[in-house]
Amino acid sequence: MLSEFSLIDRYFARRAKAPTPRQDVAPLGIGDDCALIAPPAGHQLAISTDMLVAGRHFFPDVDPHALGHKALAVNLSDLAAMGAKPHAFTLALALPGTDEAWLQAFSDGMFALAERFDCALVGGDTTSGPLNICITVFGDVAHDAALRRDAAQTGDDIYVSGVLGDARAGLGVMRGEWRAPDEAAASAWQRALERPEPRVALGRALSGVAHAALDISDGLAGDLMHILKRSAVRATVDTDAVPCSDAMRALPGAARRQCILAGGDDYELCFTAPQNAREAIARIGESVGVPLTRIGTIEAQGAPAIAWRDGAGAPLSLTLQGFDHFHAD
Amino acid sequence: MLSEFSLIDRYFARRAKAPTPRQDVAPLGIGDDCALIAPPAGHQLAISTDMLVAGRHFFPDVDPHALGHKALAVNLSDLAAMGAKPHAFTLALALPGTDEAWLQAFSDGMFALAERFDCALVGGDTTSGPLNICITVFGDVAHDAALRRDAAQTGDDIYVSGVLGDARAGLGVMRGEWRAPDEAAASAWQRALERPEPRVALGRALSGVAHAALDISDGLAGDLMHILKRSAVRATVDTDAVPCSDAMRALPGAARRQCILAGGDDYELCFTAPQNAREAIARIGESVGVPLTRIGTIEAQGAPAIAWRDGAGAPLSLTLQGFDHFHAD
Repeated sequence: MLSEFSLIDRYFARRAKAPTPRQDVAPLGIGDDCALIAPPAGHQLAISTDMLVAGRHFFPDVDPHALGHKALAVNLSDLAAMGAKPHAFTLALALPGTDEAWLQAFSDGMFALAERFDCALVGGDTTSGPLNICITVFGDVAHDAALRRDAAQTGDDIYVSGVLGDARAGLGVMRGEWRAPDEAAASAWQRALERPEPRVALGRALSGVAHAALDISDGLAGDLMHILKRSAVRATVDTDAVPCSDAMRALPGAARRQCILAGGDDYELCFTAPQNAREAIARIGESVGVPLTRIGTIEAQGAPAIAWRDGAGAPLSLTLQGFDHFHAD
Repeated sequence: MLSEFSLIDRYFARRAKAPTPRQDVAPLGIGDDCALIAPPAGHQLAISTDMLVAGRHFFPDVDPHALGHKALAVNLSDLAAMGAKPHAFTLALALPGTDEAWLQAFSDGMFALAERFDCALVGGDTTSGPLNICITVFGDVAHDAALRRDAAQTGDDIYVSGVLGDARAGLGVMRGEWRAPDEAAASAWQRALERPEPRVALGRALSGVAHAALDISDGLAGDLMHILKRSAVRATVDTDAVPCSDAMRALPGAARRQCILAGGDDYELCFTAPQNAREAIARIGESVGVPLTRIGTIEAQGAPAIAWRDGAGAPLSLTLQGFDHFHAD
C-alpha cells in the first residue's frame, strides 16, 4: 500500500511542474509549507474554490479520468466567468484508500486539462476519508478588467454560450428519468455531464466588451438571478431563444424546459453586453469557435426578477427548481 | 431547514468583510465567480491548503468552536512557516446537515482567529456530504523573503518554538493510551490539541534572520527530515534539549519521546539559523513572547538523516513513527 508521501510523489508532485515553467509560478515547486505565486504587474489574482463530493456531485463509479477533468474544469469555468487567464491550482484530496489505477486515471484526466490551459499544480493536501476533491484555482486578470456579476446595465442584451441542458439530460438518463432518443444523443449528453469545457478563451475575449458575466453551474434561471440581484435590475428572457441541442427536442416539454432553464452543470457563460456591441460579440464568438446566442434583455432597475416570454412575446409562467445542495432535486 | 444560500449568508458571507477593509482584498466581497486579491507591490502570495476530515483529523463530537479555530489555525501556521503575513482565505465545507448551533459555534471560532490576524474570508463553497473542511489561505511575503525548507546550511543551529508533544499527549488521553497527571495537565493538553496558536509573528520576525523553516504538523522527526532532504544536509539533535511542558515528564519515557519527537499537531516552528544569529534569535523570541530553544546542529552535506543524541552527547537509537494519513497510528 502506498504511503501518503509516495502517493503524492507518484501521481501528483512529479507532474506538478509539467506546464511551461514561468519564473513567477511556484518557484518552490510542491513540497514546501506554501506555494508562492504572484500575478503579472498590473494584474490581480482571481481565486475560486470548489468542493466535489462523491454521491452528490458525481456517481462514485464515474470514470476517474472524467472526474479528474471535471474537478478542474468547474474551477477553470469560474476563472472564465471572470475573464481571467488560468495560472495555477491547488488540490486537496480525501481518498477512501489508494487505488492506483483510479489515481492514475484521475490524475491523467486532471493534468490533461491543466496542461491545455498552462495551469500548474502548485500545492495540495491528501488524506484518507470519504472521497472529496477540493480544488482552488488562481487566474490572472488585469486590474478593472474582471467580468463581475454586478455590472449589468439597463438595455443590455443577455447572451449564453453553447447549448444548455445536455448535462442535466444526461443525468436524467442515468437516473432513469427519461431515455435518450438515440445512442449518439446518450453519448453527447453523458459527455456534457462528465467533460464540461471551460470557456476560458471566451471569457478572456469578453473582458472589456461584456458588462456582467457568470458561469452557469446551477441552471440558467438561478444563475441569471445572481446577476440581476447584484446589479439590481430585471430581465426578460425568450425561452424559445435559449439554445439547446437537437437531441433535446426529443424530450417532453416540461422535462426539456427543466433541463435547459434550470438543469445545472452547463458550465457555459451567461453574460450581458450593450446593444452596440452586437458585432463585436459576433466576432468574438467566431474567433473562439463558440456559438453565442442572444436570449433576452436587461430591463430597467427594480426588484430582481426574470420575465419569461415565448418566441411570440407572450408571458410564460414557469415553475423551475434550481439546484440547492441542501435540497436535493 | 436552511437552504445553501441562506446558510452561506447567515454564517459566513455577512461576516466575510469583518476584518479591516483593504483596497486590495476581495473588492467583490463574497458572491461572484471568483475573489480578486493582489499582494502589495514587491510581494508575492504564499498559498497553502489543508483538508480536515471528521474521524481522521478531529473527533466528530469535538467542540465546533475549537474546530473552527483549528481549521484556520493549521493553515495560518503554514503561512507562519514561510514568514508570510495573513491576507485572506477561502473555505470549502461539506456538511452532513444544517445544525445551526454547530454552524454558529464553528463560524465564531473561525472568525475569532481570522479577525485576530486580519485575514479576510473572500470566497468558498458549501455542499452536503460527510463533514470535511478545506481551507486555502493566502499571505503576503516580500520577494526573496520567504522562509523555505531548502535553505538550511552546514553549521546552522536548529531551533524549535514553544514546547512539543502536548497535543499528542492530549490525543493519548482521549484515546485512553495514558492519563494526565492532574486536571491542569489534562486541560493544557486538550487545549494544545484543539486550539493550536499559529506562530505568525514569530515567522515574520524570522524572515531575513533564519535560513530554513517549517511548521511541525506531523512530528519533529518527520518534519525536520523535510528540511534535511530539501537542503541535502544531515542533523544532530539533542533529545534532552527538545522543550516540553512539565506535565509531559509524568509520562513514561517511551510515550514521552513519542509525543515530543514524533507526536504531530504541534504547530510550532522548527527553523535553522547561523550561529552568529544567536543574539538576534534570542531577541526575536523575547519580542514575540515565544520561547525559542536550540536543539541541534546542521551537519555537513550528505544523505539526509537525523543523529539523535542525549544531553551527554551519547548516540540514541530511536524508533519513531511519524504521522501518515494512509497508515494510521
